[in-house]
Amino acid sequence: MRGSGTWGCIVNERVDTLVRGTLVNVNTGNVEDCAVAIDDGIIVALEERPAERELHANYVTPGLIDAHMHVESSMVTLPQYAEAVVPNGVTSVVHDPHEIANVVGAAGVRAVIQDAEQTPLKARFTVPSSVPASDLQDCGATLPAEMVTDLLEEPNVIALGEVMDVPGLVAGDEDVHAKIRAARERGLTVDGHMPQVTGDELQEAAQYLDNDHESITLAEAREKADVGLRVYLREGSSSKNLAELLPLTEEVDTRRLSFCTDDREVTDIVDEGGVDFAVRKAIREGADPVDAVQMATINTAESYDLPFGRVEPGAPADLVLLDDLDTWRVDNVLIDGELNPTEDGTTPSATNLPTDTVESPSVSPSDLAITAPDGRSRTARVRVIDAVGGLQTEPMIAEVPVQEGTLLPNPDEDLLSLAVIERHGGNGGVGRGFVHGLELDRGAVGSTIAHDAHNCVVAGVDHASMAAVANKLEELGGGVVAYDPVDDEFVSLALPVAGLMSNEPIETVYEQFETVEAHTAGIGMAKTGLMELSFLALEVIPTYRLTNNGLVDVTNGQYVDVMVSEHAGEQGSPDVDRSAPDDSVSEP
Amino acid sequence: MRGSGTWGCIVNERVDTLVRGTLVNVNTGNVEDCAVAIDDGIIVALEERPAERELHANYVTPGLIDAHMHVESSMVTLPQYAEAVVPNGVTSVVHDPHEIANVVGAAGVRAVIQDAEQTPLKARFTVPSSVPASDLQDCGATLPAEMVTDLLEEPNVIALGEVMDVPGLVAGDEDVHAKIRAARERGLTVDGHMPQVTGDELQEAAQYLDNDHESITLAEAREKADVGLRVYLREGSSSKNLAELLPLTEEVDTRRLSFCTDDREVTDIVDEGGVDFAVRKAIREGADPVDAVQMATINTAESYDLPFGRVEPGAPADLVLLDDLDTWRVDNVLIDGELNPTEDGTTPSATNLPTDTVESPSVSPSDLAITAPDGRSRTARVRVIDAVGGLQTEPMIAEVPVQEGTLLPNPDEDLLSLAVIERHGGNGGVGRGFVHGLELDRGAVGSTIAHDAHNCVVAGVDHASMAAVANKLEELGGGVVAYDPVDDEFVSLALPVAGLMSNEPIETVYEQFETVEAHTAGIGMAKTGLMELSFLALEVIPTYRLTNNGLVDVTNGQYVDVMVSEHAGEQGSPDVDRSAPDDSVSEP
Repeated sequence: MRGSGTWGCIVNERVDTLVRGTLVNVNTGNVEDCAVAIDDGIIVALEERPAERELHANYVTPGLIDAHMHVESSMVTLPQYAEAVVPNGVTSVVHDPHEIANVVGAAGVRAVIQDAEQTPLKARFTVPSSVPASDLQDCGATLPAEMVTDLLEEPNVIALGEVMDVPGLVAGDEDVHAKIRAARERGLTVDGHMPQVTGDELQEAAQYLDNDHESITLAEAREKADVGLRVYLREGSSSKNLAELLPLTEEVDTRRLSFCTDDREVTDIVDEGGVDFAVRKAIREGADPVDAVQMATINTAESYDLPFGRVEPGAPADLVLLDDLDTWRVDNVLIDGELNPTEDGTTPSATNLPTDTVESPSVSPSDLAITAPDGRSRTARVRVIDAVGGLQTEPMIAEVPVQEGTLLPNPDEDLLSLAVIERHGGNGGVGRGFVHGLELDRGAVGSTIAHDAHNCVVAGVDHASMAAVANKLEELGGGVVAYDPVDDEFVSLALPVAGLMSNEPIETVYEQFETVEAHTAGIGMAKTGLMELSFLALEVIPTYRLTNNGLVDVTNGQYVDVMVSEHAGEQGSPDVDRSAPDDSVSEP
Repeated sequence: MRGSGTWGCIVNERVDTLVRGTLVNVNTGNVEDCAVAIDDGIIVALEERPAERELHANYVTPGLIDAHMHVESSMVTLPQYAEAVVPNGVTSVVHDPHEIANVVGAAGVRAVIQDAEQTPLKARFTVPSSVPASDLQDCGATLPAEMVTDLLEEPNVIALGEVMDVPGLVAGDEDVHAKIRAARERGLTVDGHMPQVTGDELQEAAQYLDNDHESITLAEAREKADVGLRVYLREGSSSKNLAELLPLTEEVDTRRLSFCTDDREVTDIVDEGGVDFAVRKAIREGADPVDAVQMATINTAESYDLPFGRVEPGAPADLVLLDDLDTWRVDNVLIDGELNPTEDGTTPSATNLPTDTVESPSVSPSDLAITAPDGRSRTARVRVIDAVGGLQTEPMIAEVPVQEGTLLPNPDEDLLSLAVIERHGGNGGVGRGFVHGLELDRGAVGSTIAHDAHNCVVAGVDHASMAAVANKLEELGGGVVAYDPVDDEFVSLALPVAGLMSNEPIETVYEQFETVEAHTAGIGMAKTGLMELSFLALEVIPTYRLTNNGLVDVTNGQYVDVMVSEHAGEQGSPDVDRSAPDDSVSEP
């Protein structure tokens, strides 16, 4: 061939790194001995080359990609998160800063994109499409279509974030469709969020959306795959759907399946890992290891048109060097050819996200109490949010004691007082109610993580402890606080970054969170109580939820009295129809 | 869920078309009964809907996509080509107008893109990256990097066309790399062209290229797949590689394999079909029908990020309705929901491509003859292009008679005179030589299809017949001509569109071409002679080729004497080193 001598010189040049091992080739699906030649961060050949540094691995795979996650759930910033997951072989995450956006809006999204520059972890971003979640609660910011459109132009933005308002989408809501059009015009992916969406509504929604990560049953996931949606198998902290959904790999072509974590707590990240845990678990559950690796690499890369996620000439040298494939025992990780890039001991310094953003009003016990309509009754019938587990709630009617004209919790019946306090410098409104299922014996527990508006949520057995916790949260600038009146002790984890995250090393946050959890257990709280607490204010998930504006019957999308009025014909049905906030809602 | 009633009205609206049948779901790989609801050209649901028109099919697949083809090889324009292949279920082609570009340059590329607007066939375009093929021949136009960059902005351009100068690519040729960068900056695919490229050169080239369609052996194709190239299995007219390469579907994940036709003659298009023939043949050869359909639909769609090629809500309604899947018996075809759109009887009128572009000089017999160096010898030893079949040539040394100082052909030994006449209004130069293997008994045959420069190529048993054919080609404005001196008859197919194509209906071109072939057979030409003739001037394929500037030894990329000089030590080796055109080259 013409000039066929000229390239010889290139081939004989030394490369900086040569990796020898058994390659999991996600392009071909084969597992074969191979040499990976790397120079200046790029894979230049899959064959022997003279090299300055030679590495050996039993198995070599592409770096793993988490197809959908919210770093806020780990309670640490992206750079701190990277310190934990990169050593496990996670070299990229598709991050939807939905919680940050609810608190600090577009500025928060831009800040987290800037934070990503401090870490070798390849964070790619989706622009939150559904802020606020509804108009029933006050959150810190809103992202209307024009703001979302601007954010789609930011670096490393690869998609419109999960579209949560499926009914609005299907009904032709202009704001929802304007956001989708903006993403399409830029050739970007549009992420879906379709919990239990099936049948006609799924067929309609599938016209506009590319993927979904909310399936909890195999049938639901199969129906979504059949209409052409990419299905992400989720293994989070509260939503562990992998085992249930894994048989899907036997039913459909795996090329359009991916793994994601969505929401994983700091403890699970440190103890189990990130999306690498999904790969390990899938293999343990009997999945073909090559399928499992493809579902965390090339499949996700194709979903978002990412240039990494495969080992081939011309691709960035993002590699996992494994001692054992089936158990995912990692020896070394390369990102852009750099060996174990997070192990240089330098913990990232500052975050670009705002701190000390919690502006909730100082509250007294009486601010958190519901006043009885009259001084005579000794008890009152109230609507209670029954936290039945798995972030689900059921409507419940119960009797609570009345003292000095105030409705009181009844810990003997696991009936706690619950308050949601607006904390974004808005109306400072306080929503009051009752919750069952948290099992607190004494004191109070509170958090500024309260999906999706992230106001202050406090539950307790007495209003004094609750007020103490609420004021402590404001003093900390956000976090998780438990208070035990017996020894008058506060135990807390400070989360000053937007009231959602810490910028401390993840091990530090892990230990502090363990301490808080131990303390909450000490005052009787259920093991999953803190997680349940943080979802009691999410007014878009059935059935009852409490917002800073009052108790919401989500099924009807309406406010509802906490107290069951004794009008004829009303048997405490949860379907009371009220179009305006009722008298249990505070007017600031 | 909120508003869950609102979408009901949409679902209950009538759609214009409902197709019932067994769907080949290329997303999941499953084959299941299904209903496809179509409205206003878009698939709106994969379930029953009230419809104005209902169709039934035993099998439903997405419309087929030809991953790589040159419409010029069919000798008809795109709209005429569509009339032939759309009824077979081909609803899209990825067309590289490489031949047109060699004749009329950027204007030709723009014209063929405009021609595509006249047909429902979804033609997508790659911008020819390698015009001219070399600097050893004069063609009609060149496409330097800046011109290619402009063309990448044209509508329906989806890739940079096959990069042919692999050595230049690997050696870092700036023009080649500038074209690739321009495509990458626009997020476009870069097509490869790597015949027999393996080992180090393949590793280097794979860094820059996305796919290849030139494999002829299984080992070659497997090596390309292993380095991450998408492999297109080609089933053309001269290159029929499908059967040889099909076992690759057992060796690698089929998701990155596609079918293409590259070059298919009018006769094969009409008798067998386009890329649909590859699907049918693959199934007949034992391929899984779902794999076969995926290789002609979603796989290719993913290769170029095309929005069609799958049957799912939101996708264009490009469907093939089949009576039988295994034999690919087509009942109906829908493009954007339109039923059998090419069967409305309206043959497209005009082409935007230029006609009557052939500007070759009028030639006399002596213009085509080689003069002997001296008047004494009765014979001369000459270098001959031996057309051994399959477009391949071998170097050959032979004796030819000399009369009145002129070298003559010797049909008894199948040694024909060959001439290549510049026809683009350039130097009008004539290259002269000899060819073995065409088996012509009398007269002459000529064509203005002469890859890649597409000058006039004429072969004959006497120079008078050759001159008559050459002048007839100019008179026709291009085409294929056979001349029989016995009855002084010309039989011709006029190809006035850039001297490469006809704008007549494909059946007309088919019949005229059959007549020409019958006539060439009548004067003794080998069955594949016309195809071989059109590649004798392609100076980038070993070994000997004739250009309008003279005989080229492709292996060395240099001109070489036709006559073997009698200098000591020279045994007629084909390796004569001459840096300048030799005395057999005419100087206009």
